[in-house]
Amino acid sequence: MTREAGATRTRRPPAERRAEILRIAMETFAERGYQSASLAEISARVGLTQAGVLHYFSSKAGLLTGVLDLRDSSDIEELGSERPHGLAFLRHLVETTRRNTEREGIVRLYTVLAAESVTAEHPAQEYFRDRYQGLLALVVEALEEARSLGEVADDVDTATTARVIVATMDGLQLQWLLDPGSVDMTRATELAIVRLIGRDLPPVGQTSGGPGA
Amino acid sequence: MTREAGATRTRRPPAERRAEILRIAMETFAERGYQSASLAEISARVGLTQAGVLHYFSSKAGLLTGVLDLRDSSDIEELGSERPHGLAFLRHLVETTRRNTEREGIVRLYTVLAAESVTAEHPAQEYFRDRYQGLLALVVEALEEARSLGEVADDVDTATTARVIVATMDGLQLQWLLDPGSVDMTRATELAIVRLIGRDLPPVGQTSGGPGA
Repeated sequence: MTREAGATRTRRPPAERRAEILRIAMETFAERGYQSASLAEISARVGLTQAGVLHYFSSKAGLLTGVLDLRDSSDIEELGSERPHGLAFLRHLVETTRRNTEREGIVRLYTVLAAESVTAEHPAQEYFRDRYQGLLALVVEALEEARSLGEVADDVDTATTARVIVATMDGLQLQWLLDPGSVDMTRATELAIVRLIGRDLPPVGQTSGGPGA
Repeated sequence: MTREAGATRTRRPPAERRAEILRIAMETFAERGYQSASLAEISARVGLTQAGVLHYFSSKAGLLTGVLDLRDSSDIEELGSERPHGLAFLRHLVETTRRNTEREGIVRLYTVLAAESVTAEHPAQEYFRDRYQGLLALVVEALEEARSLGEVADDVDTATTARVIVATMDGLQLQWLLDPGSVDMTRATELAIVRLIGRDLPPVGQTSGGPGA
């Protein structure tokens, strides 16, 4: 990089520069995993010195936290009180899978980091433990809503079924990343949920318990 | 290590030494992933120089191949023509999960390496692509056997159901590694399979199509 190019870059507003660093860190972690990605490579791809990157994020672990805090607004955990209920939430999981087929980088990032987080002293282990607990709680709640509305059978074990739904989504992502042409994640996720709850899902956009649901 | 200890070690038969290197490489890959594990660490844990390890395995990638070629004789892919058929094979998957709860190191190794294999230029990517193809083919075959015996409904989509069963097992392993006390992998795997095929599994040891199956 020439001095002139460096000067041009430093004129970018800090918020924009920060966002660019995060975008490149995300790409690099998705490509290499966290442990193998180096601050040197991330800095070079951004076009900054390592000191320049450390001005925004204090360490490689700080970058990881920044990347994990980025949440696509379509993500399930970010829906808050707006989230759909009962079977409509399960339909939402299928639609999330459909969107995931168009954002391979994010899927790769989470697949690689989640598995890597079980290795020794990984800085994201607590993050993923919490993330699964939160996600499982949402799925359990939706299954219980559906059960109380009579939308799923009374004998559905909501805790185990929630685990299996989340596990299915994770495992399909791995198969899809290895062999995208052979795996229809969306179809497989819907088939799994329908079989697990013994009931078809409502069409997209229909609220739970509505006519024909 | 003292010269004397070194001398003692070199008296061990090559086959035994080779097996020890593989065991330690397996542990190290499970703890750190492949990319982060170093030949230096593996060699130190074995008590050999790097040159000493390279006498048995020509590179770190060679060690990885050696580790992946190690197969527990209880593994599904190793059953060959002895494998159970139809629903008995699906029961075997549940029993494999039960055994996996007692071999956390192997589960960790495969979970970490499979996800890591989708990163850039990973030496085990082809291995895992092939492994999933082989595993899926076995599950599809068992589902088709069961269908032809009338043990599962005619409308079961064997290809997608096989993917979902394998995905469920992978995803549950990840949840279990993160939080072993909260996850009953065996129970969850059986629940998933039973719901997916709409039929209870035969007890352990019963062949497919037998009375009461």
